[in-house]
Amino acid sequence: MNKTRLEAFSDGVLAIIITIMVLELKVPHETSIKALLILWPVFFSYLISFIYVGIYWGNHHHLLHTVHHVNGKIIWANMGLLFCLSLLPFTSAWMGENIPEKIPLMLYSINLAVCAVAFYFLQMCVLPQYKTTSKLIDAVKKQKTKGMISLGIYIAAAVVSFIMPWLSIILIIIPAILWVIPDKNIEEAFVEEHKE
Amino acid sequence: MNKTRLEAFSDGVLAIIITIMVLELKVPHETSIKALLILWPVFFSYLISFIYVGIYWGNHHHLLHTVHHVNGKIIWANMGLLFCLSLLPFTSAWMGENIPEKIPLMLYSINLAVCAVAFYFLQMCVLPQYKTTSKLIDAVKKQKTKGMISLGIYIAAAVVSFIMPWLSIILIIIPAILWVIPDKNIEEAFVEEHKE
Amino acid sequence: MNKTRLEAFSDGVLAIIITIMVLELKVPHETSIKALLILWPVFFSYLISFIYVGIYWGNHHHLLHTVHHVNGKIIWANMGLLFCLSLLPFTSAWMGENIPEKIPLMLYSINLAVCAVAFYFLQMCVLPQYKTTSKLIDAVKKQKTKGMISLGIYIAAAVVSFIMPWLSIILIIIPAILWVIPDKNIEEAFVEEHKE
Amino acid sequence: MNKTRLEAFSDGVLAIIITIMVLELKVPHETSIKALLILWPVFFSYLISFIYVGIYWGNHHHLLHTVHHVNGKIIWANMGLLFCLSLLPFTSAWMGENIPEKIPLMLYSINLAVCAVAFYFLQMCVLPQYKTTSKLIDAVKKQKTKGMISLGIYIAAAVVSFIMPWLSIILIIIPAILWVIPDKNIEEAFVEEHKE
Repeated sequence: MNKTRLEAFSDGVLAIIITIMVLELKVPHETSIKALLILWPVFFSYLISFIYVGIYWGNHHHLLHTVHHVNGKIIWANMGLLFCLSLLPFTSAWMGENIPEKIPLMLYSINLAVCAVAFYFLQMCVLPQYKTTSKLIDAVKKQKTKGMISLGIYIAAAVVSFIMPWLSIILIIIPAILWVIPDKNIEEAFVEEHKE
Repeated sequence: MNKTRLEAFSDGVLAIIITIMVLELKVPHETSIKALLILWPVFFSYLISFIYVGIYWGNHHHLLHTVHHVNGKIIWANMGLLFCLSLLPFTSAWMGENIPEKIPLMLYSINLAVCAVAFYFLQMCVLPQYKTTSKLIDAVKKQKTKGMISLGIYIAAAVVSFIMPWLSIILIIIPAILWVIPDKNIEEAFVEEHKE
Repeated sequence: MNKTRLEAFSDGVLAIIITIMVLELKVPHETSIKALLILWPVFFSYLISFIYVGIYWGNHHHLLHTVHHVNGKIIWANMGLLFCLSLLPFTSAWMGENIPEKIPLMLYSINLAVCAVAFYFLQMCVLPQYKTTSKLIDAVKKQKTKGMISLGIYIAAAVVSFIMPWLSIILIIIPAILWVIPDKNIEEAFVEEHKE
Repeated sequence: MNKTRLEAFSDGVLAIIITIMVLELKVPHETSIKALLILWPVFFSYLISFIYVGIYWGNHHHLLHTVHHVNGKIIWANMGLLFCLSLLPFTSAWMGENIPEKIPLMLYSINLAVCAVAFYFLQMCVLPQYKTTSKLIDAVKKQKTKGMISLGIYIAAAVVSFIMPWLSIILIIIPAILWVIPDKNIEEAFVEEHKE
């Protein structure tokens, strides 16, 4: 199976996940500024989830960029990742409506952790398929370390949510910032590859 | 009509079906673990429907891979399949909210059976279009048998739902497992084809 | 502007319109067969709208198949068509929940008529762009007549809805059947074109 | 990273934003013409938002047309634009349900202003990437002025909403008209480019 349709399908699912989350933002009945401002936790959780899905979309693209054929394992590892990410609208909405409640914060952290594991698993299935060696592949491999650190932070956020919910929220934000900062390694590797 | 736009449209519809099902998971009003755990039947039916739509996406891709032009029959057989699959969010939600109620279980089984029939019908329309003979086409043809067995199990699940709902649930799960296990025949045929 | 992105965007919008309509089918609170059967009018209007969006997707593809570049007029005529079609989930749901009420039936007929006009307008913008003459273009041009007949039937359905709602429903169904029957002219023209 | 997947993902997100807005149009419980007519403000805000998303889709396409590789900055500037646009279904629904209430009108104007800023920022990231000089690039650059004027009008609409809500609505409509009128510069530039 060639990867074109896998990418198209994944793009479609990710585009829908990232967009239906805005339905969480329920239109307030009143028209006061106050009625709008009390929505900030829901807005915050929409924003953070939007960023995370955006990050996964970027990383997903990087990971599959140099692969040509995908096997059954990759297809189902990819489905697993999409399934975990598709739960974000649910866990994100529950967290947003109840900030800073413990259990929803914990569930959201666990959801992020499960997504990180699913992505790690997809990396495990994809990386052996790389036949050439290039700077890009090295850069993608380096992402595994970044992924492990993020996973650690998500687990810490889940544990901490019971004692210090606000610290948990900070821990949820940190990996997003880490990933949004453009990765010089990957960009340089891409530029180099296209020069060749 | 070339198949590119047919595949793109089908991918879009399947991506939306698979994703809007998460809207079934209604955010609980309480923030206790208990409020979360009582959602397990809805979560289970989301998971099983996600897997089924994923399976159909894969099989759909395999089936159309070696066809170049599609006629009016194929377009409408494809529309029929998409329509049947588009009912899954509805039947899945009804089943999930009422497990182990008989009628919703029966309806979900019937929905799966109708999808299987629609896919069989699409196979009937597509297979005569194959002009070359390759291992891949043989592998796709072998899937018809697997499809027939699955259809039998769905019908059994529908019948059994009135007497033993839990057995019905097990019968619904079995074909999903059968299809998720990577199909060595198809993968080998694909690898071989791309070698040529 | 090349047409690839116009087609991709239109496919995306049509795929979403066709799929979100299933959200009209509200999960019943009870689990009886009776609770399911009273949904038939909603199911019927979902089915008929699904078929209509499917028809427009096919005709849209035929129309744009032989065009290479699209101008601002075509882009906005296309946007107009997508807007009219995007109202179908609303008018379809209102009709389905109230069959055989007069006003919803009238509104749905008007919606179909407006879509037909929008498609006619798109044809008017696209056809002068055809530079070559082929059987396909002749076949597409012949569709204009079919479109005019359909438009007449939709208007008749809107008028009749006040006196004989059930006749109005039949009039709504007829053009769908007319369009679903594969068009020999277009298919032959396609086959011929790809032979050349 | 090549731009194909960036465009595909953006097209997907824009297609979903433009379509889920129709869900704002809640099906009335009654079946009278009156029940339908009181929906006009919701319909109006759906129409205006549909046009704006359509405009951004067109401009987005023009902007990225001549770029070949996209860097991390462009990806996140694009994500920022998609995020701002994804808020339109929310602000549009709030405005539509409460016309001519001040705060919702102000919020919608601010949303449009933020989208304009996000698009300006994306232009700032993309334009330095242009390596060749062509009429098309000149035309895209001229759009920056049009964007600045629109931004001014949105801000004026936000300010005016407190004193004269109806003037605010007119100010919201004006830029939409400005952008829908086909841009001769861009079209000529496109035609010329494809001639070369």
